[in-house]
Amino acid sequence: MTGQESCRFLKFISHLLFCALLFSFASWSFASDTRCDLIPLPLSLTTGDGVFHITPQFRIAVEGKGNERLLRATDRMRQRLAGRTGIFFTSNTIEPGKNLGNGGLSISFERTGRLALHEDESYALDITSEGVILKAVTDIGAMRGLETLLQLVSAVPGGYCFPAVFIQDHPRFPWRGLLIDSCRHFMPVDVIKRNLDGMSAVKLNVLHWHLTEDQGFRVECKTFPELHRLGSDGLYYTHDQLKEVIRYASDRGIRVVPEFDIPGHSTSWLVGYPELASAPGPYAIERGFGVKDPTFDPTRKATYKFFDKFFAEMSSLFPDDYIHIGGDENNGKQWDENPAIQAFMKKKGLKDNHALQAYFNERILNILTKYKKKMIGWDEIYQPYLPKNIVIQSWRGEESLRDAAQKGYMGLLSRGYYIDLAKSASHHYLNDPVPQDSVLTPEERKRVLGGEATMWSELVSPETVDSRIWPRTAAIAERFWSPAGVRDVDDMYRRLEIIALQLEEFGLTHIKNREMMMRRLAGGMDIEPLKVFLGAVEPLEGYARHHQGVTYTSFSPLTRVVDLAIPDAAVARRLEKLVDNYLVRREPNSLDLINDTLRIWKDNHQRLLPLIRRSPVLAEIEGMSEDLSLIAGAGLEALEMIVAGQEVSSDWILQKKELLEKAKKPRGHAELVVTSAIGKLIEAVSCTGQTSQTQSEASR
Amino acid sequence: MTGQESCRFLKFISHLLFCALLFSFASWSFASDTRCDLIPLPLSLTTGDGVFHITPQFRIAVEGKGNERLLRATDRMRQRLAGRTGIFFTSNTIEPGKNLGNGGLSISFERTGRLALHEDESYALDITSEGVILKAVTDIGAMRGLETLLQLVSAVPGGYCFPAVFIQDHPRFPWRGLLIDSCRHFMPVDVIKRNLDGMSAVKLNVLHWHLTEDQGFRVECKTFPELHRLGSDGLYYTHDQLKEVIRYASDRGIRVVPEFDIPGHSTSWLVGYPELASAPGPYAIERGFGVKDPTFDPTRKATYKFFDKFFAEMSSLFPDDYIHIGGDENNGKQWDENPAIQAFMKKKGLKDNHALQAYFNERILNILTKYKKKMIGWDEIYQPYLPKNIVIQSWRGEESLRDAAQKGYMGLLSRGYYIDLAKSASHHYLNDPVPQDSVLTPEERKRVLGGEATMWSELVSPETVDSRIWPRTAAIAERFWSPAGVRDVDDMYRRLEIIALQLEEFGLTHIKNREMMMRRLAGGMDIEPLKVFLGAVEPLEGYARHHQGVTYTSFSPLTRVVDLAIPDAAVARRLEKLVDNYLVRREPNSLDLINDTLRIWKDNHQRLLPLIRRSPVLAEIEGMSEDLSLIAGAGLEALEMIVAGQEVSSDWILQKKELLEKAKKPRGHAELVVTSAIGKLIEAVSCTGQTSQTQSEASR
Repeated sequence: MTGQESCRFLKFISHLLFCALLFSFASWSFASDTRCDLIPLPLSLTTGDGVFHITPQFRIAVEGKGNERLLRATDRMRQRLAGRTGIFFTSNTIEPGKNLGNGGLSISFERTGRLALHEDESYALDITSEGVILKAVTDIGAMRGLETLLQLVSAVPGGYCFPAVFIQDHPRFPWRGLLIDSCRHFMPVDVIKRNLDGMSAVKLNVLHWHLTEDQGFRVECKTFPELHRLGSDGLYYTHDQLKEVIRYASDRGIRVVPEFDIPGHSTSWLVGYPELASAPGPYAIERGFGVKDPTFDPTRKATYKFFDKFFAEMSSLFPDDYIHIGGDENNGKQWDENPAIQAFMKKKGLKDNHALQAYFNERILNILTKYKKKMIGWDEIYQPYLPKNIVIQSWRGEESLRDAAQKGYMGLLSRGYYIDLAKSASHHYLNDPVPQDSVLTPEERKRVLGGEATMWSELVSPETVDSRIWPRTAAIAERFWSPAGVRDVDDMYRRLEIIALQLEEFGLTHIKNREMMMRRLAGGMDIEPLKVFLGAVEPLEGYARHHQGVTYTSFSPLTRVVDLAIPDAAVARRLEKLVDNYLVRREPNSLDLINDTLRIWKDNHQRLLPLIRRSPVLAEIEGMSEDLSLIAGAGLEALEMIVAGQEVSSDWILQKKELLEKAKKPRGHAELVVTSAIGKLIEAVSCTGQTSQTQSEASR
Repeated sequence: MTGQESCRFLKFISHLLFCALLFSFASWSFASDTRCDLIPLPLSLTTGDGVFHITPQFRIAVEGKGNERLLRATDRMRQRLAGRTGIFFTSNTIEPGKNLGNGGLSISFERTGRLALHEDESYALDITSEGVILKAVTDIGAMRGLETLLQLVSAVPGGYCFPAVFIQDHPRFPWRGLLIDSCRHFMPVDVIKRNLDGMSAVKLNVLHWHLTEDQGFRVECKTFPELHRLGSDGLYYTHDQLKEVIRYASDRGIRVVPEFDIPGHSTSWLVGYPELASAPGPYAIERGFGVKDPTFDPTRKATYKFFDKFFAEMSSLFPDDYIHIGGDENNGKQWDENPAIQAFMKKKGLKDNHALQAYFNERILNILTKYKKKMIGWDEIYQPYLPKNIVIQSWRGEESLRDAAQKGYMGLLSRGYYIDLAKSASHHYLNDPVPQDSVLTPEERKRVLGGEATMWSELVSPETVDSRIWPRTAAIAERFWSPAGVRDVDDMYRRLEIIALQLEEFGLTHIKNREMMMRRLAGGMDIEPLKVFLGAVEPLEGYARHHQGVTYTSFSPLTRVVDLAIPDAAVARRLEKLVDNYLVRREPNSLDLINDTLRIWKDNHQRLLPLIRRSPVLAEIEGMSEDLSLIAGAGLEALEMIVAGQEVSSDWILQKKELLEKAKKPRGHAELVVTSAIGKLIEAVSCTGQTSQTQSEASR
């Protein structure tokens, strides 16, 4: 190799390192190291000696009573195992009865589980070099164990294996949910199905399906067909599709709790049935977002007649014990302005809208009870005289959850799990339904059933929704399943990257749609510079995207840079770590990686410009791309000073800090998230305490 | 920049060039060049002056009678336009009636099209700086025009536009199909839907849905429920799902022609109804592939009673005029071995199995006719006394198609469009249903209705099927739509890369699933070396994969390297071009690119090895990866000699050719496809005509 070749080769290797830093994921559980890559982490795990080799002769037997659901789950498990290992198994039937002894997976369980709150989901997994034994009380528990087993697939020289371990496991909370909002943007059946698969992989057990909203009524209703005919733009689930999803969920040990949000959030219902509203119609499907006025009239008999028939139909369609009635964010405007409603309140002694809504809820509760359903609703439904089998879902937070538990009510936490708000996985992960310092008694703690991640869909489409759900929801799933003491954020992130890859086998698009969307944005050009740019960018958090001078509606395109930016930009997170490492321990390896990263960013604007010129949709990020280049340059300068032990003037620091401030400005509803790491570098440069002028004077 | 930095930077740029060569796609129709990027190419296109600017105020009106189907198609068109451009349109309703004049798209049509053979699909598109006018006879024609319009989206400084053009267009053939085999591997509804979207984007108009096979009966049958209950492993389409797909297809101007393959290829039917077979059962769903024995008994009344009821149900379910009865590859074994059938043949004077099958077909034809359906079947159904409204689909080829046409029968060509066989797009593209040298008269030519690409699914799963269909099927679609003279292979490939990107907006996975599958294979490591390797690799063509010492069944994993290798490996194709360029014109640019490509390949084996060590599933390509490295090295040596004008000994050449021969050996059911380009380089080195020994003797 010539000197020049060797230098080129080095550069090439360093580019690869950068690529690895940027885009690769941590390694799977391949090779027998001592780390545990499972997510959620099990209650207890003991490492044994050796491994069980997975060969083409691998066999599976299910002991105990035949159970079609478990047989199907086992079939899927084998197919996934074949898919990951490329092994052509010689046996593709599941053997009945006997323990296989050597050479196979033997599954046994005691009874078919019922898909209901508090059902037993425990399992024990015993892997030795001789065989794999999976035992559970219910088939649902066995399914949880199968997912654990699939997460254990490892490689040893010459082939694949399960490492020898003994696992005993059961969940901390019995209600571990994901809410999917099919209303703001309709989510076709396949979106729901692949997310059910993802849920089962991380042991979530409730799909909370938000089916009605101002923006759409998404369920076929045979009793009142104008609901879906006029309220959905043709985008609704037929009875057959609903049954298909419920069956699919059941096959994965997941309950489906439908939400019919009333009395507010109900514009789409009133399009077909304006006579049930608290103000005269006509109504049209809402295209904007936020809290809207249309509300059911809680004072009329017709309203309850309607709901009686409605819930009769829905109760027979959805088998779960619970029906969610929403109940949130009724602004009361239509009630205030309707004299008949005001008169009714006076007559009944209902002192305010809250009391009126309580009256409404109680009547709805009676209807649900008649159809043998239990009620769940958001914070607002809470009333001290409601029966104790209702569940309060808290979007307001821990405090209201605590109050409810103390008063004897069961509750779920959702505040802190709003995955639509583009916050970090660690933010959600550390949020606990029952924090360690909770004042609740053991008895009261049991009333906190768990929680739910909420995928509200104002700003996601079927194309992007997976990337907002995964992999962060796996971190939340761990919070709900694993012991409270499991709180190592770094290790969670490490394992999150492993599960992110495994989740792809269900067709989930959280990784693959990013580059697809980049290809669309790049108009046929090489997406590399866009990829580099996005390593430093996250979408705006919280509700900030709604306040950027553009009003989102259900028609707005969700295909821009902000839509493929993801919370937890991995490169930014790693850079922060590297900077911390370097500043504390002066690791040369960290220095090189920081240097490479900043250099690539510095040069990236020139590389991204041709794409921006070609694709007008990228124009909105031009300034941000330039800023990234500038602050990366500032970071490089700072690094050089630090390495050389050189001092700078205070106005050098001032100037760089101004650059950083400017770079923090959101553009295209997204923001640069590397300003903190670069800021640390700039802070770390020694300052002479003099302005450059006094400095240059001094040096004269 | 220091010298070293500059050298590193140069290397970095050259790496980018290589990346571009490897993975990027040709540019879209952005910027107003004179190339036409449409696929299929229209009948006539005239370029006008200027462009029509697409602004947030863009409006759409549909003139003429209201037509829900066209309104929905127009809505989708606007949503796709918003998605590509990121524009928040201010108007999101479609205006009725009047021509918009300035500032909008005005659509008019004369009547609602019927989804039937020979329906009018013509349209005219007139784009000026003032507006866009789309006119068609039917709403189906208007939909074809909308797809053309979406392919015209371009960028000019500051925004997006449609370039001013005048297009008049109609198809060359009326039957332009894609066969999807949902039997060998079941294809869920969403797979079918996204492929219907893809079909409509390239103006295909028939989904030929292969619904029954030895390996699965995929349709819910209410009359004979054991068909789907026992014949499908639970993987079948319900009536509701079938209707949903038919409606979805209709919304895109696509007919759905179901195929019920009889009397052979019918094992799955006979699982539930063994009494209808020509040999005693019991039967089990077939897991292997190839021609199997089980065949309906054509001699029994019960058989026709069964089919009468069966087709009664299916005729009302599928609205198309045609039903496909398969009829192919009956090996006759069960007939030969059944004395009752032999006696029947004797009695009826049926001299062989072909005559017996003709008897069967005729009776089936009578049933179809009774239910107002026309018959289509594979070559084997052809009989000189059948009515002239049947259609013969030719898998045997042009000759049998010609014979049929000459005898007055309508026909379709499928031979040459078997996209499951992993052949190049150019192979399919140049295959013409009516070749220029055809001996058919103009009248006979009209009987050749078009053709169908056939996606047989022995070796594809829902995960890989899109990558076998797209983008090659777009080339076939152009063959069926555009004038016969459109045959520029290079230009087709250029446009294929453009449409490949556009097809992604339907959720098609032909591009994005490749890297997803690489991530799974790489076990969490950086996939870059695998990507480089795959640039030089294609799956084995034809039926060769079935003869590699492993027997594929419906359980076999389709997740290995061969499954993500694609026909038309782009890098290999481009390298061949570069080599031709360089050898003929000594272009220095070509030289650099060849050099870079070969160098990366040469080094790639060392980079890929760690992945192979980590992922046993990659072991099968280790030898091939090493060979790629070796032949790339040989190519570099050859290039150096050529540049230096140096001569080599004949045994140098011999040795390199041996390397190439060794490298051609298939591994993992895939093969290196760069041996030809590298072979040309080696051929191009001047040879002294001496062996190295005589040479070294001479030089002594």
